[in-house]
Amino acid sequence: MPALSQRALEIPASPIRKLVPYSEAAKAAGKHVYHLNIGQPDVETPQVFFDAIQDAHLKVVAYSHSAGHVSLRQSIADYYGNLGHPLNTDQVIVTTGASEALSFVFATIMNPGDEVIIPEPFYANYNSFSIFSNVKVVPIQTQIENDFALPPIEEFEKLITPRTRAILICNPGNPTGVLYPQESLQKLQEIVKKHDLYLVSDEVYREFAYDGKQHKSVLGLEGMEDHVIVTDSISKRFSSCGARIGCVVSKNADVMGGVMKLAQARLSPPTLGQIGAEALYQLPASYYQDVVEIYRKRRDVLVESIAKIPGAVCPDVDGAFYAMVQLPVDSSERFCQWMLEEFDHEGATVMMAPGSGFYATPGLGTDQVRIAYVLNEEDLRKAMECLAAGLAAYPGRVISGEALASDNA
Amino acid sequence: MPALSQRALEIPASPIRKLVPYSEAAKAAGKHVYHLNIGQPDVETPQVFFDAIQDAHLKVVAYSHSAGHVSLRQSIADYYGNLGHPLNTDQVIVTTGASEALSFVFATIMNPGDEVIIPEPFYANYNSFSIFSNVKVVPIQTQIENDFALPPIEEFEKLITPRTRAILICNPGNPTGVLYPQESLQKLQEIVKKHDLYLVSDEVYREFAYDGKQHKSVLGLEGMEDHVIVTDSISKRFSSCGARIGCVVSKNADVMGGVMKLAQARLSPPTLGQIGAEALYQLPASYYQDVVEIYRKRRDVLVESIAKIPGAVCPDVDGAFYAMVQLPVDSSERFCQWMLEEFDHEGATVMMAPGSGFYATPGLGTDQVRIAYVLNEEDLRKAMECLAAGLAAYPGRVISGEALASDNA
Repeated sequence: MPALSQRALEIPASPIRKLVPYSEAAKAAGKHVYHLNIGQPDVETPQVFFDAIQDAHLKVVAYSHSAGHVSLRQSIADYYGNLGHPLNTDQVIVTTGASEALSFVFATIMNPGDEVIIPEPFYANYNSFSIFSNVKVVPIQTQIENDFALPPIEEFEKLITPRTRAILICNPGNPTGVLYPQESLQKLQEIVKKHDLYLVSDEVYREFAYDGKQHKSVLGLEGMEDHVIVTDSISKRFSSCGARIGCVVSKNADVMGGVMKLAQARLSPPTLGQIGAEALYQLPASYYQDVVEIYRKRRDVLVESIAKIPGAVCPDVDGAFYAMVQLPVDSSERFCQWMLEEFDHEGATVMMAPGSGFYATPGLGTDQVRIAYVLNEEDLRKAMECLAAGLAAYPGRVISGEALASDNA
Repeated sequence: MPALSQRALEIPASPIRKLVPYSEAAKAAGKHVYHLNIGQPDVETPQVFFDAIQDAHLKVVAYSHSAGHVSLRQSIADYYGNLGHPLNTDQVIVTTGASEALSFVFATIMNPGDEVIIPEPFYANYNSFSIFSNVKVVPIQTQIENDFALPPIEEFEKLITPRTRAILICNPGNPTGVLYPQESLQKLQEIVKKHDLYLVSDEVYREFAYDGKQHKSVLGLEGMEDHVIVTDSISKRFSSCGARIGCVVSKNADVMGGVMKLAQARLSPPTLGQIGAEALYQLPASYYQDVVEIYRKRRDVLVESIAKIPGAVCPDVDGAFYAMVQLPVDSSERFCQWMLEEFDHEGATVMMAPGSGFYATPGLGTDQVRIAYVLNEEDLRKAMECLAAGLAAYPGRVISGEALASDNA
């Protein structure tokens, strides 16, 4: 029997999805499972998405241009223009979700063995895309104690080697909820210019910024046209994850040329999703405000609920709709599995993503979970009650000195 | 300015799409362009596709299971069962078109530097997927003179090295129209077993077999469960290219496990396309028969038309909806560009894919074009008239001794 490739063996199972068999078993056993493991919003996809597809009256579901319908690229360019970042359609290539966008970017800017520095914890699938492309992830640690802020520039300098090709950030951050201030971006600009690197910014959560804080895009950094690459998606912004429509944005024509060749190889992004996406990008600014307010309230529920759980720590969450929460457990992976397999609270349980899968450094995040606050407030409150009850009952509960102190605070 | 990766530089522009700027210019200049360059059928997508999406009344366009909706996987498994190849749903993973299926398979079974043997000429994007995965394509030449039949087994033996991991075939063949008889598959079985390789078969044109000939799937080869991987798609079968729904099929659980990890990394295939695809797979067998009859007639138009063009050679075409046609020209690439830029016949011209892009061996296919007979008979006849007129007017027309002889035949 022929062997698998090394990369197929190395790619980790998704921490977001690896517990799926246990949740399926829990559901089969009649439990209700609150899904806080995956960034799948419950917000309704705007009706214009469906209407546009129906109104198109397609006779043939044909391939589109490999870069996407030019009318969609124009809509995306207009959207960026409204944010203060004027673009032309050649600077936008539509992809099958931000996942494909990142795969294309990795392959376009890095050779096998090249290195990309990523603040850790990071979106777990960055690992998979890296292994897929035979690229090496070099994590730079950020700490829950200071809300996962970007490390000082000297810490980056220590990690740069002749193989370093890029720095990748997720802003607002999945899984941390961090929102990088302008000073952090300028710090990145400095080091990227100095070492002639690419700065790749995953900005799919751009609108999700709370408490009056403003998201700053790397597209606003001056003199960085050749260095900056943004990956984006309609999935979260318009609650359209299954449409699989994302894009690569860059003013570097060579990068766009490389991405375009990969885009041609896979022929076209999904046609129906593109038609729907074009309508979504016509929505008024009030749409975003309404959605963000929904998530701001959910964020508040999460933060308040975690604060009441002895030994649990929730950092500041300024953006996106995730938090890396520290729990008083021996192993968050064992705890998450136990919640699905062994526990229920009034017939329900909670599914979360174990934290270690978001770290490249072994041993980190083992007492953290990523919680996606994608449920309505009522369900989220119930899920938090369920989590608190689970922690109280969990045999592997650990109250360290620090956790005890916080209990008493 | 940071550099591009070597692979981004090496990936060739798609021969199927590289002339797009010229066709856009031709259209802007008021010419009608007959598109024979791309496998985009004009057959209507069955109405059940659209109805199923509308009837789903989705509120949220959510991610699906990473392997695809289980109900779609069951429909696909049933389809294979009806073909005499019983499968369970674990042996089917839904992908974003056969393009993604092949990318996943390449990454799962091959390390960078590993080799895959592919009969040449082959679907041009196999090159791109290989470069993307840092895998080396080793072409094995087939000849227009014997209708691109599979070479003798000794020719394969000569190409096998310690890095050889797989043989990839496209059956029925794009771009050749070849349909491999059972003996060819047995030949492949012998060599694959002997050298412990994978046999990857791209069978997206499975139903397109003419003149009473039957397509034989590698899934029917006994004792090959661990070696055989099939990539498939609804794009051609149901004229649904833009839905971007394909799949990987294999009974090798390790391979499926590797593919699944890549599938998880990109979260999910397109949700709307999956809903439509499930309805398509419920269509009765008569649907395929009707469609194949349409293409059989088109194939006849093509073969008859080429036979009347002095110096042009069309091999036997038993399957798919392509032919690699030899033309009496100095360079098929120059000729194809000239047809778009310089020529029109009654206000129309023809776009074809230059042949060299379908060969890995430099210098081969330079007098061939791939013609996709995806237009209705009337348009196809007009396109063929236009091609004949273009060849008569082309300044780079070459009548070699051989071509002249065939002129006189």
